[in-house]
Amino acid sequence: MIPRYSRPEMVDVWSQETKFRIWFEIEAHACDALAELGVIPKSAAEAIWAKGGAATFDIERIDEIERETKHDVIAFLTHLAEIVGPDARFVHQGMTSSDVLDTCFNVQLVRATDILLADTDRLLAALKTRAFEHKDTITIGRSHGIHAEPTTFGVKLALAYAEFERCRQRLVAAREEVATCAISGAVGTFANIDPSVEEHVAKALGLKPEPVSTQVIPRDRHAMFFATLGVVASSIERLATEIRHLQRTEVLEAEEYFSPGQKGSSAMPHKRNPVLTENLTGLARMVRSYAMPAMENVALWHERDISHSSVERMIGPDATVTLDFALARLAGVVEKLVVYPERMMANLERFKGLVHSQRVLLALTQAGVSREDAYKLVQRNAMKVWEEGADFMTELLADADVALALPEAELREKFDLGYHTKHVDTIFRRVFDAC
Amino acid sequence: MIPRYSRPEMVDVWSQETKFRIWFEIEAHACDALAELGVIPKSAAEAIWAKGGAATFDIERIDEIERETKHDVIAFLTHLAEIVGPDARFVHQGMTSSDVLDTCFNVQLVRATDILLADTDRLLAALKTRAFEHKDTITIGRSHGIHAEPTTFGVKLALAYAEFERCRQRLVAAREEVATCAISGAVGTFANIDPSVEEHVAKALGLKPEPVSTQVIPRDRHAMFFATLGVVASSIERLATEIRHLQRTEVLEAEEYFSPGQKGSSAMPHKRNPVLTENLTGLARMVRSYAMPAMENVALWHERDISHSSVERMIGPDATVTLDFALARLAGVVEKLVVYPERMMANLERFKGLVHSQRVLLALTQAGVSREDAYKLVQRNAMKVWEEGADFMTELLADADVALALPEAELREKFDLGYHTKHVDTIFRRVFDAC
Amino acid sequence: MIPRYSRPEMVDVWSQETKFRIWFEIEAHACDALAELGVIPKSAAEAIWAKGGAATFDIERIDEIERETKHDVIAFLTHLAEIVGPDARFVHQGMTSSDVLDTCFNVQLVRATDILLADTDRLLAALKTRAFEHKDTITIGRSHGIHAEPTTFGVKLALAYAEFERCRQRLVAAREEVATCAISGAVGTFANIDPSVEEHVAKALGLKPEPVSTQVIPRDRHAMFFATLGVVASSIERLATEIRHLQRTEVLEAEEYFSPGQKGSSAMPHKRNPVLTENLTGLARMVRSYAMPAMENVALWHERDISHSSVERMIGPDATVTLDFALARLAGVVEKLVVYPERMMANLERFKGLVHSQRVLLALTQAGVSREDAYKLVQRNAMKVWEEGADFMTELLADADVALALPEAELREKFDLGYHTKHVDTIFRRVFDAC
Amino acid sequence: MIPRYSRPEMVDVWSQETKFRIWFEIEAHACDALAELGVIPKSAAEAIWAKGGAATFDIERIDEIERETKHDVIAFLTHLAEIVGPDARFVHQGMTSSDVLDTCFNVQLVRATDILLADTDRLLAALKTRAFEHKDTITIGRSHGIHAEPTTFGVKLALAYAEFERCRQRLVAAREEVATCAISGAVGTFANIDPSVEEHVAKALGLKPEPVSTQVIPRDRHAMFFATLGVVASSIERLATEIRHLQRTEVLEAEEYFSPGQKGSSAMPHKRNPVLTENLTGLARMVRSYAMPAMENVALWHERDISHSSVERMIGPDATVTLDFALARLAGVVEKLVVYPERMMANLERFKGLVHSQRVLLALTQAGVSREDAYKLVQRNAMKVWEEGADFMTELLADADVALALPEAELREKFDLGYHTKHVDTIFRRVFDAC
Repeated sequence: MIPRYSRPEMVDVWSQETKFRIWFEIEAHACDALAELGVIPKSAAEAIWAKGGAATFDIERIDEIERETKHDVIAFLTHLAEIVGPDARFVHQGMTSSDVLDTCFNVQLVRATDILLADTDRLLAALKTRAFEHKDTITIGRSHGIHAEPTTFGVKLALAYAEFERCRQRLVAAREEVATCAISGAVGTFANIDPSVEEHVAKALGLKPEPVSTQVIPRDRHAMFFATLGVVASSIERLATEIRHLQRTEVLEAEEYFSPGQKGSSAMPHKRNPVLTENLTGLARMVRSYAMPAMENVALWHERDISHSSVERMIGPDATVTLDFALARLAGVVEKLVVYPERMMANLERFKGLVHSQRVLLALTQAGVSREDAYKLVQRNAMKVWEEGADFMTELLADADVALALPEAELREKFDLGYHTKHVDTIFRRVFDAC
Repeated sequence: MIPRYSRPEMVDVWSQETKFRIWFEIEAHACDALAELGVIPKSAAEAIWAKGGAATFDIERIDEIERETKHDVIAFLTHLAEIVGPDARFVHQGMTSSDVLDTCFNVQLVRATDILLADTDRLLAALKTRAFEHKDTITIGRSHGIHAEPTTFGVKLALAYAEFERCRQRLVAAREEVATCAISGAVGTFANIDPSVEEHVAKALGLKPEPVSTQVIPRDRHAMFFATLGVVASSIERLATEIRHLQRTEVLEAEEYFSPGQKGSSAMPHKRNPVLTENLTGLARMVRSYAMPAMENVALWHERDISHSSVERMIGPDATVTLDFALARLAGVVEKLVVYPERMMANLERFKGLVHSQRVLLALTQAGVSREDAYKLVQRNAMKVWEEGADFMTELLADADVALALPEAELREKFDLGYHTKHVDTIFRRVFDAC
Repeated sequence: MIPRYSRPEMVDVWSQETKFRIWFEIEAHACDALAELGVIPKSAAEAIWAKGGAATFDIERIDEIERETKHDVIAFLTHLAEIVGPDARFVHQGMTSSDVLDTCFNVQLVRATDILLADTDRLLAALKTRAFEHKDTITIGRSHGIHAEPTTFGVKLALAYAEFERCRQRLVAAREEVATCAISGAVGTFANIDPSVEEHVAKALGLKPEPVSTQVIPRDRHAMFFATLGVVASSIERLATEIRHLQRTEVLEAEEYFSPGQKGSSAMPHKRNPVLTENLTGLARMVRSYAMPAMENVALWHERDISHSSVERMIGPDATVTLDFALARLAGVVEKLVVYPERMMANLERFKGLVHSQRVLLALTQAGVSREDAYKLVQRNAMKVWEEGADFMTELLADADVALALPEAELREKFDLGYHTKHVDTIFRRVFDAC
Repeated sequence: MIPRYSRPEMVDVWSQETKFRIWFEIEAHACDALAELGVIPKSAAEAIWAKGGAATFDIERIDEIERETKHDVIAFLTHLAEIVGPDARFVHQGMTSSDVLDTCFNVQLVRATDILLADTDRLLAALKTRAFEHKDTITIGRSHGIHAEPTTFGVKLALAYAEFERCRQRLVAAREEVATCAISGAVGTFANIDPSVEEHVAKALGLKPEPVSTQVIPRDRHAMFFATLGVVASSIERLATEIRHLQRTEVLEAEEYFSPGQKGSSAMPHKRNPVLTENLTGLARMVRSYAMPAMENVALWHERDISHSSVERMIGPDATVTLDFALARLAGVVEKLVVYPERMMANLERFKGLVHSQRVLLALTQAGVSREDAYKLVQRNAMKVWEEGADFMTELLADADVALALPEAELREKFDLGYHTKHVDTIFRRVFDAC
């Protein structure tokens, strides 16, 4: 997480201010429940909410206390006591630091996911708009980077839409993974705190109680969370790579929007580089990499060790801030993508008619030619186009063996581009109607 | 995937025989649908089923053809034609290799997941049995590897149960991710094959049609699949690490079952090493590592490239075979785990009474002592136990400041172990009732 | 490691036969040293060499014993005793299994590296030959996938040469990392075996004694080894990606050799897909991924645990066999790469003269125009080429402001391609003379 | 990189101030060389050094320009022109942004490595001091977490010393990997800039010229660099894990230093948790994870793309700052580690005499008992110790079969601890004399 690749709303989720506010809310909600149980006075719970709720926590002061105690939650509680006064002794009763830390971390992850979901929605909206705009924009489909058969640019975008729709569902599942609350005390036995406190705090914060925790919330949940972010990042990389390819000098079927003042290169003014999608490719590598330490975090020793903490202090913000930035950047790229339909058509027609070879092959077999023979017939004419720049249909019409099997009219019909787009509506219905 | 860490049922999923059989079924089901549409004769579809269904595919022969054509699907189709005869020309009409390869890969992943789910069920059953067996077996809970407060061995196992129950749900979700079928022809436009063929094949194979494919089934699905396996492996590592810790010479609260003939070491016959769980730790590292190339596979170029293929030929079997083996091994370890409740109690009592310090601390604050003062009171007595081997209760009873705040009877009551286990039933209800 | 991506010589390094032969040699060399020290009779050492050296180890039999003892080294020693007879009791005196296992693993890694070095040499030779062949073959250099300035195809290959020359040096260093021998007994104290035995065995096997081992050879060595393989794989991916780009339909400056019988696609006979380099891209992902578990293997518990073993049983063969295959495949691709110099030139001339914009910019600033103004002058003319397909030189000659700063002759001189290649000799000297 | 895990000296390497200063120096040194060649006036080069050298670059202003131009190097050059005046037009002649960016990045990595080497030296010094302090401190060696045979705590530390000595050598090699300079202009052909400029700048900055670059310095160098950091981090994890194990309640052979004011837990005041080494375990996971994106960065497209940039903006600081912090923290832990030799001896004697079983086994075989029989003899007595808490020597003396083979005096001699430490001097000589 560096400022260059950060957006303020997500950065706020991870600020010290936000963290201490959530810590306070967890403690104060717990006090409510403890007061309800009669463990602490109701007046104390009220005083804690009143004074803590009104206060601005002094981060400098908390840091100062932590430097002495080397314990962040104690530092915060000490500062809270400075604000709340004597009633502060009722705070944190029967709780352990992890109750506060882990529940807070999950609240932050849930909030982060809500932002990521909003980002994804914006991206989905952009993809849908552009997909319908280019539903019928014919372009060559490529496999192995080699021309294959025609498709439409809208279908490419519909694919991206379906992929990010899946990513959205995965993010929803990932959110559910981490939307739990643990207020179960040391080693998670509830010895010192009634399970109803956990239930109350969970409900107040929009979380579910963790069925069984061991002082910490089990880290398989977070491993799944960060692994999911890595998959989403990989989908970003896929679309970014597609755009980078389309912007290549020799292809140039689409371009990132290039603002008037922008300079592409210090030396070559004509260059318009796909720098945003290249950047997204790099950011995807980063988000993906965070899945590994998150998985290594699962095997904590016994009821907990604290090795996960440093990892999460880094990847919590790093992964979510970077992914938020990347999703927003990608949405912007899609929204403003400059598309060149004429170039798409020009590229498609590069090898005159050769894209229709599959249809001709099929027609020949359907006309009774054996698969092997049909393959050879198509191949020998295709090679003339490939090597000599001939026109595929002309060559086929001049091939006696082809003519024998396939009347001219039927052959000509095989070169109709509409043939390839006849099911685009079906695809669009499948992709967009369900959502 | 090496024989040492493989089980036959899962290995079968990835055999050449299985693969070619699935390829055949995909082709034959497609022929049914094509015949229904009138594209090919019904008699051809029937002949294909009859002859192909009865045949044993000659893997040597297919390999031989592939060496010439350098294309595996063509090699198979050529061999199929040798079996089926002239009707073979109706096979694969309008389809592309990826239709066969990708749908087959997904069928294999679905079957693999079904085995993994069965493995997980066995593990869950073992965990449940042992958890109830040790529901009330008191043991010390540890944080940072340091004694914390008492819990029960059953709670430890309940935690593992809940974790693998989540893993089960994740596997179900991962199965759904990959349970799709694509029969959409070159670049996925259905130009040469009607979408109804895909729907028919999907249904016949227990899959859903891929809403939009680009010759290949999008690899974000597989990335999510393998990432999920990595998370499951990480949970295996957690439980394996727990058992390794418990089997340490100084802890020795549990041991892997040690069969009579087994030798622990060539040199030290008294050693019983936790070799199964150490092995599981290593296997978890492997399964986890496969998530990375699976994520890198997502960004295929344009409508597809084939870079994912070599990765999947390796991690498809490697990840599922290894995880199957690991889950089964872990289930066996849990089923036969030798548990030493007396050692658990002896370890717990190692520092006489010190495990009750948290309760004493709480009691003091509830008796009106400030949190800071209570902390100091507990700390000064605790240090005597720690450093001089004193008895905690004796020291506290002799501490005038403690006595002032807390009557003896009340203090003694704080050393009751039952206090720590009073919510074990709640935890068990939460964990096991829901399932 | 799967047969498809394996070569026999490397597979042999990892065979059971090879492993048991190395185990035998370690034990027999140790016996020589022990006999020299007078610990065991010289006649025993001689008998062990004589009988064991002549024997073929019965892998079935060893497996059978291991199934009972669950210990592979004991199984081997038991079998060896069956071959050697009573003198077998002098084998393995004071040694521990890890002495055999770890030293053997390192011997295998050293042999594997020797093969990888030979592979690299073949690749370097191919790159050098092709680099000199195309030293002066002009091609467009591209940054961001966008045309930048001219270079030569030979320079591209010289870069690859320099990169693999570095990889070679890294492999040599990696070899040295693992070329150690440990015969230090349980926990590595030499309590039961004299250090001179280790020195003798090390020398006999071409290794160095491990200065200090803890029953196992420290795994940071192997982490470095496998990390290095991951870097070499990443360099393979770079060159493979370059070739995939060059083979794109729209670029087509080079192609993988396409053998006469080969079929590119079951459906589109005209397609020649860069399947080898795509395959290499996937294999690189795999080799790279093995670095992670190798690094996780470092933190073994205390003097050793066996979690590394399952990882190494898999990645030892997997990483080296795959990298061997990949290097050999890449060498073949380079050796037979079909290069199209005319297409390179045609692509370069695609935007008439625009590639010279940098030179014109420089000429303008040298002629006294401010950097900012020169940039604008170049930009406005470049845009006409870009957007209207104009000729860059014609536009510049027609631009009064340009003419004012730069005489026509001088401007024309800026369009000389030789300008860009004048230092190619220097680059080649730097790259190839040092080696 | 977060403040919590950062040290100022390393953070400074990555500051904007440092970066712009290095950029300036690269440009100014290049101007010197260009002036020497007569390409630009000597007075200009002097003026640039004079004015730029004296100036403080205004980061706010540079950011402001970058927001418009979206290009960081142009922004810097524009600001430099504001400082230098008209002579600024001679800056950056024939260079490309990557010349500045990549050379600067390498200068930063070299400086970072110098700090890491100093950290390693401090760690090595601490390990050496403590190793000699505990050269003869007997402790039990453990394999699989199970007692094996005696060793000394000094040997454990000597092993760590040897491991970090290797890490030091790897860091030196990694430094050399990245200590290169490229001033080769667009696509690296030196078309616009003489190779002698690169040589001059390289020399001035203590770097070597990159033999062949393609606008960017090849990223295999950086992949190797970050992979090396990952290996070093893994060695940190190993030692940290060792200490965590030693501090376990049941083991307690060593402890992290616990400062007087420090609080171990908010709830359990007696707890002293190995939080520093747990933290190091987590940090190691992070540093290791950065190797992956660094390896993915290698395969840039053609002569360069910019996908590596975002990765390096993050992992450049993240990896080096975190590793610097971790090495320094580990050095501090080692320097102040509290060691408990009596506890080591107590743990060793836990199973009376059983640690000597290997010696007894050996003695029996040397006395003529077959290996299999000796094993059984040792095993049956060892099991009594294990299961009934008997004394090993007593049992052996009472075993008629043992007595038959081994006289009492000889047996007693096998229980001498000095036997295990007799080669400690050899080990220390091997480890410390070479360095």
